[in-house]
Amino acid sequence: MSAASAACIFCKIIKGEIPCHKLFESERVLAFLDIQPLSRGHALVIPKFHGKLLTDIPDQDLSELLPVAKKLAIASGATDFNILQNNGRPAHQYVDHVHVHMIPKPNETEGLGVGWPADMNADQAKLKALCEEMKPKM
Amino acid sequence: MSAASAACIFCKIIKGEIPCHKLFESERVLAFLDIQPLSRGHALVIPKFHGKLLTDIPDQDLSELLPVAKKLAIASGATDFNILQNNGRPAHQYVDHVHVHMIPKPNETEGLGVGWPADMNADQAKLKALCEEMKPKM
Repeated sequence: MSAASAACIFCKIIKGEIPCHKLFESERVLAFLDIQPLSRGHALVIPKFHGKLLTDIPDQDLSELLPVAKKLAIASGATDFNILQNNGRPAHQYVDHVHVHMIPKPNETEGLGVGWPADMNADQAKLKALCEEMKPKM
Repeated sequence: MSAASAACIFCKIIKGEIPCHKLFESERVLAFLDIQPLSRGHALVIPKFHGKLLTDIPDQDLSELLPVAKKLAIASGATDFNILQNNGRPAHQYVDHVHVHMIPKPNETEGLGVGWPADMNADQAKLKALCEEMKPKM
């Protein structure tokens, strides 16, 4: 477990210094309601290990996050929902402690808005080359 | 491991009946490049267990997905990125086999577009009541 960051609001929530609407806690993770929800039931699951980015968190602290996000989805009763984890300000991260959102999508206006600027005619030869470039780094 | 779905394109990729730009494979998961990418390095990691929704997948098949998404982020070289897993058509799911996107966010136009209709003045008493309602279902 990393040292908590003194300035981190989520580390303060983990330590109980700031209250939260707690839904679940285990040795390695904590889940609670988002207090500025995008829809009813919007909740977060976070590792207790402090780190800003997904890439900062050890695998053993990541492995429980999706099983708990699944619990959140079931408990919310949502039929449709998004699981989202943002890394970096340009990617819409505003608290610098890894957090996984479970966001029910009850209708078009509530929940996550998804913009999808896909390249529908991607060059497959370029993708093959990119694959060969990335594979050794995995 | 569930029986593969005969009609599922991702089950066909897992079985090797349809090619992919494969980045990583283990007993329980497979990772490959998205062929209609939102940005350079956009990749998917999927459980080999067939199921449409996060809530359909056993915990042991979920636990490796974020550790592999982390590998994808590192291999892509992305500084900023989004991890996204959509459940249901209204939530932007278009292949009915659970998949986790790792989407680099290199600039404002490429990568995931995020719409965030947050309730900035949520009623905390209502959230407390919702928390009490959800907690026993976790």
